[in-house]
Amino acid sequence: MADQAQFVGLDVGGTTMKAAVVADDGRPLSKPVVMDTNPERGQDEGLATMCETIRRAVAAAGITLADVTAIGVATPGLGDIRKGLIIDPPNLKPWKNVPVRDHIARAFGKPTAYQNDANAAAYGEFWVGAGRGAKSMVLFTLGTGVGGGIIIDHKIIEGEHSHGGELGHLRIAMPDVGRQCGCGARGCLEAYASATNVVRRAREDMAWWRGPASRLRDYYTATDEDFTAKVIFDLAAAGDELALKVVDDTAYYLALGACAATATVDPEMIVFGGGMVAAGEWFRSKIEGYVKRFGLPYPTKSVKIAFASLGSDAGFIGTAGCARLLAHSK
Amino acid sequence: MADQAQFVGLDVGGTTMKAAVVADDGRPLSKPVVMDTNPERGQDEGLATMCETIRRAVAAAGITLADVTAIGVATPGLGDIRKGLIIDPPNLKPWKNVPVRDHIARAFGKPTAYQNDANAAAYGEFWVGAGRGAKSMVLFTLGTGVGGGIIIDHKIIEGEHSHGGELGHLRIAMPDVGRQCGCGARGCLEAYASATNVVRRAREDMAWWRGPASRLRDYYTATDEDFTAKVIFDLAAAGDELALKVVDDTAYYLALGACAATATVDPEMIVFGGGMVAAGEWFRSKIEGYVKRFGLPYPTKSVKIAFASLGSDAGFIGTAGCARLLAHSK
Repeated sequence: MADQAQFVGLDVGGTTMKAAVVADDGRPLSKPVVMDTNPERGQDEGLATMCETIRRAVAAAGITLADVTAIGVATPGLGDIRKGLIIDPPNLKPWKNVPVRDHIARAFGKPTAYQNDANAAAYGEFWVGAGRGAKSMVLFTLGTGVGGGIIIDHKIIEGEHSHGGELGHLRIAMPDVGRQCGCGARGCLEAYASATNVVRRAREDMAWWRGPASRLRDYYTATDEDFTAKVIFDLAAAGDELALKVVDDTAYYLALGACAATATVDPEMIVFGGGMVAAGEWFRSKIEGYVKRFGLPYPTKSVKIAFASLGSDAGFIGTAGCARLLAHSK
Repeated sequence: MADQAQFVGLDVGGTTMKAAVVADDGRPLSKPVVMDTNPERGQDEGLATMCETIRRAVAAAGITLADVTAIGVATPGLGDIRKGLIIDPPNLKPWKNVPVRDHIARAFGKPTAYQNDANAAAYGEFWVGAGRGAKSMVLFTLGTGVGGGIIIDHKIIEGEHSHGGELGHLRIAMPDVGRQCGCGARGCLEAYASATNVVRRAREDMAWWRGPASRLRDYYTATDEDFTAKVIFDLAAAGDELALKVVDDTAYYLALGACAATATVDPEMIVFGGGMVAAGEWFRSKIEGYVKRFGLPYPTKSVKIAFASLGSDAGFIGTAGCARLLAHSK
């Protein structure tokens, strides 16, 4: 046995899965091992790949399984966190009712924690990332969709139906006037602030824009592969006024989500992660400005608005952190 | 000492304060003692009245102070829950920075818990009211304003800045189109669903209503004392179509608040308390219908929507419950 407890964190996504061994202080012992998920090959092969990814991560860390205290695994929703069950996530079709936690626990004979991937990433940022040292933190993850996680005193708010921290589906506009969300409802934060919807809004804004000529118009007929949220943020940073408007609106919508987090759990920190945070401080301070303008004055005077610091490592680090919480609770 | 632990719960409001001794199983040992708060007489007199109310409650229970294990006190916001401090609540003007917890602890030589009044009421309903047996519960209290509290596993979500569960200020419409709230912002749930705003909306709806003649018009020039939310709910129950529309809209707005509770903490139960719940099952089922229609499908399929069961006793019972939590944590 190693002197210090060590944990494997496995973060399963729809395209790839990543795992690494993480020390008791949150430091990964190697770069993560990455393998293709290939969900279309079925869940039995998926479980086998998970076990193989874990084995390779242990080897990459230069340790043996005997040195591992506990294992954590995280998957995208829909899952049943208490039961350790993948139910039927759209990103892992056609998997259904996969008892992932118990399978891995049996395969390795180790205590195994299961968590939703966005919750795990939030816990990673809370434990050793942007939220290190905070008592409570809410994370919004900005990608193709908008996800989230809520941590209070090292406890993940999992929810009674494993839907705690589904912050992309906080509604920021009434259903009768709100934008259509992929979930079927209208007015969800995700329908405004996901990378996909930032681009959609830019396309819409072009139609009525009468301000200075915008380089965004060059992308009017571009495919979604060429016309990304990054293009918009880069043009905004270069001073393009239409692009600035789209980014400014994005900050406003995200701030409305942050205000809802404050009115419910009133965290010490609100952290934003994902591709858009590459834009940096000018974008963060726009969000902060809107939070202070539209949030409850007393808590938003003090709440810290920050960007995530672990990048795409937050998932496996946080998942290892969940394994650590499990080991410490025993 | 009595065989069973016993707790005093003191619920301080802007007009009156109430206290009673509550047994370890949540049963009050007497009707609550009620005294006038008279905040305008200053905080020293206020603290003296609190102590006197506690003494009378102990006497009313037929026990002595020696039989009391711990004391709980709750006040309306703004307070600092961790520090046990009343900061400057609009309902307790001109009180400022009152160290209420330490004052009572010293006066009686008992462990003393301090809590926000809506949080305490939520804990009361969770402990022995509508939420008894649930793992997690969110309470919306409907009165002159809209308040709330969030309980997860017997823990009150107090928030880092004592603003956890400020559910009246969950925003249900964007600031540019939302109704004006008393807090200064626009679009808050309270600006739609407080008793005051239910009446305001009824007055506004009269202006454009072209449906069947409504008895609400009799109240067009009535004062707010005569034209109450109760009048509207009673007329709706009697089949008045305009009144029904106002009530139906209220259920819709409350459901949007409930959806936000689900997307953040995903509780097992969402409970509504306050005057309007006297309307009964038909109003509850309207709210439930909108929650299922506009909320995330998976959690709202199972979330229980209920009305509070302790009435105005929830405050002092829950406050005594906070004293009990404090005693059990020692």
